[in-house]
Amino acid sequence: MKILITSGGTTEEIDRVRGITNHATGALGSLIAQTFLDKGHDVTLVTTKQAIKPSQHPNLTVKIVSNVNHLKELLEPLVKTQEAIIHSMAVSDYSPIYMTDLESVCEADDLTSFLNQKNTETKISSDSDYQVLFLKKTPKIISHIKIWNPDILLIGFKLLVNVPKEELFCIARESLRRNQADYILANDLAEIDTKRHHAYLLTENTAFEAHNKKEIAQLIYEKVVTHD
Amino acid sequence: MKILITSGGTTEEIDRVRGITNHATGALGSLIAQTFLDKGHDVTLVTTKQAIKPSQHPNLTVKIVSNVNHLKELLEPLVKTQEAIIHSMAVSDYSPIYMTDLESVCEADDLTSFLNQKNTETKISSDSDYQVLFLKKTPKIISHIKIWNPDILLIGFKLLVNVPKEELFCIARESLRRNQADYILANDLAEIDTKRHHAYLLTENTAFEAHNKKEIAQLIYEKVVTHD
Repeated sequence: MKILITSGGTTEEIDRVRGITNHATGALGSLIAQTFLDKGHDVTLVTTKQAIKPSQHPNLTVKIVSNVNHLKELLEPLVKTQEAIIHSMAVSDYSPIYMTDLESVCEADDLTSFLNQKNTETKISSDSDYQVLFLKKTPKIISHIKIWNPDILLIGFKLLVNVPKEELFCIARESLRRNQADYILANDLAEIDTKRHHAYLLTENTAFEAHNKKEIAQLIYEKVVTHD
Repeated sequence: MKILITSGGTTEEIDRVRGITNHATGALGSLIAQTFLDKGHDVTLVTTKQAIKPSQHPNLTVKIVSNVNHLKELLEPLVKTQEAIIHSMAVSDYSPIYMTDLESVCEADDLTSFLNQKNTETKISSDSDYQVLFLKKTPKIISHIKIWNPDILLIGFKLLVNVPKEELFCIARESLRRNQADYILANDLAEIDTKRHHAYLLTENTAFEAHNKKEIAQLIYEKVVTHD
């Protein structure tokens, strides 16, 4: 099969030296890629420069992205030619618009005017005691996938932090319905450390549990290859 | 000699999954460390998990930090016991205080009230189209070094982006005086790529030029070991 995997975390630039980063090592995405490669599948891995990646392999193509706009441009044509996508990347949900000192913001009559401004300096000055950063929502990549290719098998990811299992399931299944995903891998950062990675692979009515990254990769592999 | 080197870039957390990162690979700091190790000096390298580091060496101690407060806590006792510090780390100049949706900020009577607020959620919700992030200045680490240890040899760094050489020199020498540094390595991001790294090692009245990372490391090495 032709499998598309995203992993790592995007960074949205504030200026040339600073950015807002979604923390993600890429370890899980790399392990999922390796699992498919070991069984002879073709894998395209879309990830970041910093992320953990599998070793070179004749059936592996690695594509590097940095921010959400790059990711969207790169994914659209790829999604149209692949059979399944495992979208494990931690995608930035907000992107910087404008950063300025607090005094300027306090003096402004209309704060929405800052939404049309752009920093012209390549490195924002650091004289003021307080700064204010305006951010706008980024495009939700996962919501485009089934529009780009209705036939692709879509496995989305939902990471929350320290929530009850019921809330995790509820929010993950909202994402499943909204994005027409076939599965959502639901996990909680409070249950992830160097040894364990507790997660549930959810459909509307079923939940498959995994306790570490290897089990997650195996679970996803089985669901993808047995899907009709 | 006992040499302290900082390298890489700090990250200030917005919440458990997002942070503001200063881009820095740690490549130059790693090369400077290697140069001192090759000549038999003792090196303590304070850097980040993600940064490039030299291979293990009996005279090398590596300490990992993430944010500015960690860095400050770790450096104070170290600075007091070392003979020279080469402070090449890209240290965050602002740290997130509070992030909220634009509507709440527009409705507020007094924007400074947000400076006393804290996000209680471990992962800030991403429903609103626009968000506003309030940030405060971090402590200037370099300004503490000669206070902690007046006898230490201090080499600071100043990175600007796309400025005339006169402006770079002027701002770097302001930093030299303000922080009682012995040298400032002044460089411009527009003159740094995979092959070249143009920089000047400045005192009040002199400027030593280097064209790549190896020359920078060699220049710093010479100035440190010949300093009386």
